[in-house]
Amino acid sequence: MTFTTLAEFRAILNDLPAADAAARAGAEARNGQLTKPPGALGRLEDLAIWYAGWRGDAQPSLTAPQIIIFAGNHGICAQGVSAFPPEVTEQMVMNFQHGGAAINQLAKTFGAKMDVHALSLDTPTKDFTVEPAMSEAEVVTALLAGWNAVDPTADLLVTGEMGIGNTTSAAAIAAALFGGVAGDWTGRGTGVDDAGLAVKTRVVADGLARHVDVLDDPLQVLRCLGGRELAAMAGAIARARILRIPVILDGFICSAAASVLEVTVTGALDHAVAGHVSAEAAHGMILKNIGKAPLLALDMRLGEGSGGALAIGVLKGAIACHSGMSTFAEAGVAAG
Amino acid sequence: MTFTTLAEFRAILNDLPAADAAARAGAEARNGQLTKPPGALGRLEDLAIWYAGWRGDAQPSLTAPQIIIFAGNHGICAQGVSAFPPEVTEQMVMNFQHGGAAINQLAKTFGAKMDVHALSLDTPTKDFTVEPAMSEAEVVTALLAGWNAVDPTADLLVTGEMGIGNTTSAAAIAAALFGGVAGDWTGRGTGVDDAGLAVKTRVVADGLARHVDVLDDPLQVLRCLGGRELAAMAGAIARARILRIPVILDGFICSAAASVLEVTVTGALDHAVAGHVSAEAAHGMILKNIGKAPLLALDMRLGEGSGGALAIGVLKGAIACHSGMSTFAEAGVAAG
Repeated sequence: MTFTTLAEFRAILNDLPAADAAARAGAEARNGQLTKPPGALGRLEDLAIWYAGWRGDAQPSLTAPQIIIFAGNHGICAQGVSAFPPEVTEQMVMNFQHGGAAINQLAKTFGAKMDVHALSLDTPTKDFTVEPAMSEAEVVTALLAGWNAVDPTADLLVTGEMGIGNTTSAAAIAAALFGGVAGDWTGRGTGVDDAGLAVKTRVVADGLARHVDVLDDPLQVLRCLGGRELAAMAGAIARARILRIPVILDGFICSAAASVLEVTVTGALDHAVAGHVSAEAAHGMILKNIGKAPLLALDMRLGEGSGGALAIGVLKGAIACHSGMSTFAEAGVAAG
Repeated sequence: MTFTTLAEFRAILNDLPAADAAARAGAEARNGQLTKPPGALGRLEDLAIWYAGWRGDAQPSLTAPQIIIFAGNHGICAQGVSAFPPEVTEQMVMNFQHGGAAINQLAKTFGAKMDVHALSLDTPTKDFTVEPAMSEAEVVTALLAGWNAVDPTADLLVTGEMGIGNTTSAAAIAAALFGGVAGDWTGRGTGVDDAGLAVKTRVVADGLARHVDVLDDPLQVLRCLGGRELAAMAGAIARARILRIPVILDGFICSAAASVLEVTVTGALDHAVAGHVSAEAAHGMILKNIGKAPLLALDMRLGEGSGGALAIGVLKGAIACHSGMSTFAEAGVAAG
């Protein structure tokens, strides 16, 4: 299955597979027999049952998580929306490739395979206050970069990103999808000062005004206000659904990209959980809008997939308990 | 260093070692040079610096976590304070030993050594509504069981417990240490119904009334209202401080036991963080009283050290980032 136009991608989203109801029911039954008071593992129980449903296995394992980092550059950087120069995108890609970034350490800690895709860094998207960030061909290419980056043998996906300027793009997308004004969705990102924040907010407002005609179509919002790494994350998350690979969402930018899918087709993110809620205030607003309660809340705001990667540990713990614990009968423990 | 009386244990608490200020300062300096925007790893940065200070190493590793489970039985069970019969304490000890409990799976997931100590299960503590739960000799023996259970080569400690009836003991201790009435601190534990909750609350109130003369002395509170597994956790956490082994606290019962140390000597838990906040509502109240913000909030309420064990993953991630990331200079990344 693949696509060559936004219309074909939209058709795929309108025909997504569901979780395996029998595996889910089997996992629920097993959960009720494990040596613990009912509900005592809290959200770990829900996580394990959710994962079992998507993997089609009532007693699943999690052994092959994949983290994919997509990097892109943004035309709006010329307006001064970031505390860092755009060269840092490519410098951080090198850092990922050499193993020196935070996400490398987290991937190692939680036994995840990590892939890095730099998307046309020499050709930033267009300045979305002036024209659409991407042509249809460009956004489809970026969606496909994500779509094709997913390892079909993975049993969990975390998508992360690097792209100086991309909190501005994410804020514009979130405002377009969920309403409100630019200031509601615009934060300090990597750490802009008050003047920088004012510029970001104005850029988001200008982008929304420029593309007012397409704001009711999430895929056009992605094309006009997004970036290549955001489109790639959306493509990867959609592909994971086709492959029934569960997804842990990362922070503000990842969640904005994923929201494009959910607003296009309600339930398109049923195979995803929110790994964390970031310190970027608008992230919590996105998660409320897509109905996801974060697993972690540790004031992180790094991107790179770091919050999602940290949550792999929580999910691994949940699945290990679910699939490895003895039942009351097996252990000879009175069930209360 | 050891002790044979509560007075000697108290003397140890009054002379606890501090963290290594130079290692902590070195970790802070390193943190400021890593390839991320300042503060972008949020609480992971604080955790790594805290851990570095206690380990005396500005670039530490975490490779040898120890989980110790202490089990004890409680005289108050005869009054019907639990949804489970007291035999379950020993049955669960067998389950721990055979690898079938939740904590076994979490220990395996996060590479922790796990030890189980069953403390005189055939001799429950006395009913604290009638007389002190333990004699001085008994509480000292239990404290020493914990003290001696800590592996000096460990680089992290999680203490957990199993003991039918022990949320009632923990509620009585918390009320004694922090004030308020029995109902403020008494919850459903493993899942008692309304009638059981009324019994628990009455038992806690009776215990507080019976031992009103000692409520201003936390170590006497531990003796009169505690249990062997609670005293052992307190002993283990104190020993970890002497050995400069950082501690992750588990849930309500572990935190109540640990609070005995903090109320005896302010700062006695500076080497400890709160792994999670449990679904037992009074746990959050304890954490507020001892000034600890939990790392996780996943509605868990199992005990066994399970919430603390799950937080090992968070701490491992924090330390891996801190000690493994490249600096801006090493990676050739512009520092913004």
